[in-house]
Amino acid sequence: MSEKYAIGVDLGGTNLRVALVSESGKIIRKLKKRSSEQIVDALADSIVEIRHADRICGIGLGVAGLIDRKNSRVLASPNLPAIGGTDAVGELRRRLKMPVFIENDANAAALGERMIGAGRDFENFVLLTLGTGIGSGIIHRGRVLEVPAELGHMSINFEAEKCPCGNTGCLENYASARAMIARAVSMLEKGAESLLKECCKGSFYKLTPEDIYGAALDGDNLSREILKDAGRYLGVGLANIINVLGPEAIILAGGLTGAWNIYVQEAIREASRRAFKDLFDGVKIIPSSLEDNAGIIGAACLVFSNLPEPLPSKY
Amino acid sequence: MSEKYAIGVDLGGTNLRVALVSESGKIIRKLKKRSSEQIVDALADSIVEIRHADRICGIGLGVAGLIDRKNSRVLASPNLPAIGGTDAVGELRRRLKMPVFIENDANAAALGERMIGAGRDFENFVLLTLGTGIGSGIIHRGRVLEVPAELGHMSINFEAEKCPCGNTGCLENYASARAMIARAVSMLEKGAESLLKECCKGSFYKLTPEDIYGAALDGDNLSREILKDAGRYLGVGLANIINVLGPEAIILAGGLTGAWNIYVQEAIREASRRAFKDLFDGVKIIPSSLEDNAGIIGAACLVFSNLPEPLPSKY
Repeated sequence: MSEKYAIGVDLGGTNLRVALVSESGKIIRKLKKRSSEQIVDALADSIVEIRHADRICGIGLGVAGLIDRKNSRVLASPNLPAIGGTDAVGELRRRLKMPVFIENDANAAALGERMIGAGRDFENFVLLTLGTGIGSGIIHRGRVLEVPAELGHMSINFEAEKCPCGNTGCLENYASARAMIARAVSMLEKGAESLLKECCKGSFYKLTPEDIYGAALDGDNLSREILKDAGRYLGVGLANIINVLGPEAIILAGGLTGAWNIYVQEAIREASRRAFKDLFDGVKIIPSSLEDNAGIIGAACLVFSNLPEPLPSKY
Repeated sequence: MSEKYAIGVDLGGTNLRVALVSESGKIIRKLKKRSSEQIVDALADSIVEIRHADRICGIGLGVAGLIDRKNSRVLASPNLPAIGGTDAVGELRRRLKMPVFIENDANAAALGERMIGAGRDFENFVLLTLGTGIGSGIIHRGRVLEVPAELGHMSINFEAEKCPCGNTGCLENYASARAMIARAVSMLEKGAESLLKECCKGSFYKLTPEDIYGAALDGDNLSREILKDAGRYLGVGLANIINVLGPEAIILAGGLTGAWNIYVQEAIREASRRAFKDLFDGVKIIPSSLEDNAGIIGAACLVFSNLPEPLPSKY
């Protein structure tokens, strides 16, 4: 049987990424644009631009935000307000005459890992995307668990500062890249000694997580401390996930996994101290294999996983 | 068609409760014993004692602890060490020649609420049992979500004292009856003024949550403060549950729901401040309708929910 194709769209934040993806997970073409206020127009244009092959079965949208699955709508998308409340799915269906599916971007990425990535061997796992923020998707019995799964906005410190989401002490405020940078800037402004001073030449706001990891590898104490502390907080989150969901695996994706040896190792150690032993012993904590492409491949997988089963060959 | 029966067993802690339950949720007979070291013997004896009706389809065990569903075993049961690691299910099957099913006790209670209690109208809900500890069960798409669901052992304060489970700052350590009593005792020992002094005549360790609620209703400030603070902590947990699982309902069971007007109301207020607004607006927070019997009825429901579908009537 000839291979099928779908268009995967990753609407994670400021960028709009669109790809033509084969059922085996190969990216045929890919494009990236800045997202705009006219988000549905931008989407439709990009899809038409990339729609090249025959046998395109549909379009999958992975959107950073809360999804109302029953009505295929985005309830709220803090980083992408233009799409909140719109009927993007209905619009695209009408304009492009194709099936359109929508999911939260991290849930879509989890589906991608499940179908053709690091989650292939697991029926039950959690994907965490560790970047500027912390996104998450849950796979249960081989399928996306249709819950909000906002694990980054689980409070791990009820008395802390407010998170923009409204909650207080969210995991994301302790273990994300944004949290690490904020802490580094604050320490540097207070005059802390660190190699980081040189690498950003005094303009602290240009610091990246890569700078911190690089300095840590060069023996910088402040950088090591920041990475280890963020790792410990991530470990608190992992232990909560393990105690509540008891997954077979936790798959970690996103830029911060580059600092695996310090940040993730510390998180695993902390989780091992905190989670129920029997549950911790049953979980593998491993890196994503689709990496940056998990979002678009996963979005395309929304289409493939919703295709009707092929008829048995005798028909 | 004549009604079916099952035996429900609730192994929640120091007591062993066994009931003969009809498919419509009626308790026909019920008995309560102290659990013993020879837990399987005690179970088998109680079941034989109560097995009265014909048409008993099987036995359901709800056990406070981590369940290995694949092997029908109890991995760990902190309050009931005698059952940890035993093959109670296999033993009972052999001795009593009947189907035997096992679940975590709070998951079983959630199933009971789903089949014939306050959860009948909800496909997706979380049950919390608020007593000495905090247990929890998750219903997803009308069925028990097969995860550990130890929401009481989710850390909401990573820097706090250690919980006996190994984690730190668990919800249970802030919002359970045990937590409230511990706080009351500590305050009274420090000489705090309170009506509670009289009601336990100086032996603080006999205090009950009912004493605290009673004193609060009589205008006692310390008691009100303890209930409200515990409620706020419960609200932190509710917000985490809402952000992660986005249920249609959270059903609250257990003795502490008697203090609904202070403790639960405060929890709902706190959750409304913290959770994503769209998700909070979609959740109903309501009391259990099976109350104390949720455990045994739910355990019996494990049997009913596993019965094969009846054949269509033409057969």
